[in-house]
Amino acid sequence: MNRQDVLETARKARRAGLRLGVSGTAQKDAALGLMAEGLSEKRALLLEANAEDVGSARQRGMPAAFIDRLTLTDRTLKSMVDGINEVRALRDPVGEITKAWTRPNGLLVARMRIPIGVILMIYESRPNVTADASALCIKSGNAVILKGGSEAINSNRAIAGVLSDALEKAGLPSEALQFIDTPDKEVLYEFLRQDEMIDLVIPRGGGALIKAVAEHSRIPVLKHDKGICHIFVDAGADMGMAKRVCFNAKVQRPGVCNAMETLLVHRDAAQTFLPDMADMYRSAGVEIRGCDRTRAIVEDIKAATEQDWSTEYLDLVLSVRIVDSLEQAIEHINRYGSHHTDSIITRDVGSSMRFLREVDSSTVLVNASTRFSDGFQLGLGAEIGISTSKLHAFGPMGLEELTAQKFVIMGSGQIRE
Amino acid sequence: MNRQDVLETARKARRAGLRLGVSGTAQKDAALGLMAEGLSEKRALLLEANAEDVGSARQRGMPAAFIDRLTLTDRTLKSMVDGINEVRALRDPVGEITKAWTRPNGLLVARMRIPIGVILMIYESRPNVTADASALCIKSGNAVILKGGSEAINSNRAIAGVLSDALEKAGLPSEALQFIDTPDKEVLYEFLRQDEMIDLVIPRGGGALIKAVAEHSRIPVLKHDKGICHIFVDAGADMGMAKRVCFNAKVQRPGVCNAMETLLVHRDAAQTFLPDMADMYRSAGVEIRGCDRTRAIVEDIKAATEQDWSTEYLDLVLSVRIVDSLEQAIEHINRYGSHHTDSIITRDVGSSMRFLREVDSSTVLVNASTRFSDGFQLGLGAEIGISTSKLHAFGPMGLEELTAQKFVIMGSGQIRE
Repeated sequence: MNRQDVLETARKARRAGLRLGVSGTAQKDAALGLMAEGLSEKRALLLEANAEDVGSARQRGMPAAFIDRLTLTDRTLKSMVDGINEVRALRDPVGEITKAWTRPNGLLVARMRIPIGVILMIYESRPNVTADASALCIKSGNAVILKGGSEAINSNRAIAGVLSDALEKAGLPSEALQFIDTPDKEVLYEFLRQDEMIDLVIPRGGGALIKAVAEHSRIPVLKHDKGICHIFVDAGADMGMAKRVCFNAKVQRPGVCNAMETLLVHRDAAQTFLPDMADMYRSAGVEIRGCDRTRAIVEDIKAATEQDWSTEYLDLVLSVRIVDSLEQAIEHINRYGSHHTDSIITRDVGSSMRFLREVDSSTVLVNASTRFSDGFQLGLGAEIGISTSKLHAFGPMGLEELTAQKFVIMGSGQIRE
Repeated sequence: MNRQDVLETARKARRAGLRLGVSGTAQKDAALGLMAEGLSEKRALLLEANAEDVGSARQRGMPAAFIDRLTLTDRTLKSMVDGINEVRALRDPVGEITKAWTRPNGLLVARMRIPIGVILMIYESRPNVTADASALCIKSGNAVILKGGSEAINSNRAIAGVLSDALEKAGLPSEALQFIDTPDKEVLYEFLRQDEMIDLVIPRGGGALIKAVAEHSRIPVLKHDKGICHIFVDAGADMGMAKRVCFNAKVQRPGVCNAMETLLVHRDAAQTFLPDMADMYRSAGVEIRGCDRTRAIVEDIKAATEQDWSTEYLDLVLSVRIVDSLEQAIEHINRYGSHHTDSIITRDVGSSMRFLREVDSSTVLVNASTRFSDGFQLGLGAEIGISTSKLHAFGPMGLEELTAQKFVIMGSGQIRE
């Protein structure tokens, strides 16, 4: 793709987006139905394309976990199909009036949800994102330009082709869903300069990807950055609850962004809480790294360094710090955390309210596991990612977060004096 | 200012913002009261500083309109003071719960308004923006870094100093309001790279300023770009209303972004509407540039060129085009407009609904003047600008648009299975 191709792709997306944006719910849902059907029907073709990607990943000696994320099976295909059908069943946010009021001069002012326009979705390895993200963008009336990882390029091309055909069959512009069919970084950077045509960039992936996108983009970027999540166990907390929740937040699925990375314990709770908790972690294979006071209570653990407080392990590793007060806990979280998800375990109403207000993160919980920071778990019905930028959307993003709002105003000839 | 100074300023703003963000409404309102008082008390000092700016503008031979915008008088000072007091009287958006629901597992999920954090405000000539923008940022709990035009640097420095002192007197961090005391463009560009510390950039001013900011910024930018606003007079519209509204939208204040620049007329309304309308415009000194069909009806007017359709005149100039249908009007607006403000004059419900839905602009009106696209007129209580970007805020921005929302969740020990 040269510069002209990029421009042409972006222009087509803009035009297609305008048409898709004013299409009715029935037509969009019909397209989603055909997308799901298409993926089922083209099963053999998709698995074949995926086998190419998996083959070359094997040749390059990629690790097993990588191959696992890359591989399409009948089961992952089915879950892609189910995912599209679930999005189809969700309420269409476009056209919703979120607020309305009347002005003294009789003007009726309302805010109406509209699609954002054209979304550039940049992601890595997992080919199912191609289907998941497309379904959410189409349902919310947005044109999408997909840029997947080079390691899944054959799978993504095949999936995107099926989805784009389905749009056309439903009478919608197939160019509302386009796939960037080259791993060339310069092409991506050229797309990131098309701020006249593209409204939003969503990068999902590692820190290096997100940094590169933010640096090269003239288009607004909703970052889906790392999660350095905390739980603070307050003095007087229910010890049973604290242990259950802290265990869940670290161990249930350590490789995801909403898993806990640092445990903060009030000094008055440390003696009763930490020894038992440490035993539970040990039996689950969790490596603990503690501050000096923690190491005085829990034996045979490594010292946590300054570096540990700002590390996202994504693994069975946990840093533990004893703090003197709620204030110190909040200070620690706002300083070392990533504004993602943090929880307090407490019996005290005052502490809970202060924690909710003062922790500067997208999701703040009282007496619950950090693992609930997830669009499905919170009842958004879907999730295109978890935004760590405050603008527009902060935290788990569902369909509504893929819309903007305009002012619509009904008058009867009003003029300004 | 060198690189290190920029970093230090941004860091101080971040720290101050965290403190300001969790301050109560009473304390913020006290600060706003002291800001208003301070400006009244320091009247002599402010007028003196302003005289320096006006003097050097005169020396450079700047035009009268420019000098007029730059000059502070007792009247403009009073309106700054009144403006701050009005913002003080508005409801504090921070902490507001906008939505709440319960999940099947008993989790209570809510969305709470929080400040955005640190806002970099970039503006030109008018020194009153220093006070207006500061009041809105402080009320909504945001730290603000102000970068005014070099031509008003003495006035802005003096105003910002008074406001910042008032914060300190109210027990709030004075660094929540900082002023970039240099016209050096490289310093501004360095600020625009501080995406770790600054959350949002709002540029208000000419196209060149906005373009430069968007190109250099790694921080999300809410553009306040030009307004190429349209009115479409539908077939069968109330001719009296159409003339009144079209006259108002062009003539009442032609130099602002929500004034009409292009009038579209349905071919079935053209013969009865255009001759009278043209007479009214002529008597008000409006120059009309028309399409061929318009020129066949209205004599002695210039031909509108392709360039005219995408020009923001900000003056008593109007381009007029006759269109065949509602579709063609919508197409014209979405193609040549700037997604700002557009209105339809019609008696037909179907046309009005279609226009509201399909015109891709931040404010879309039925039977009312485009001049209502304004935070005060729409009842937002204030206005920091009019966003032409869709992300986060689209159209007039008030206090609420200076907030983000986080998820706050109350549980009773829930974990994920």
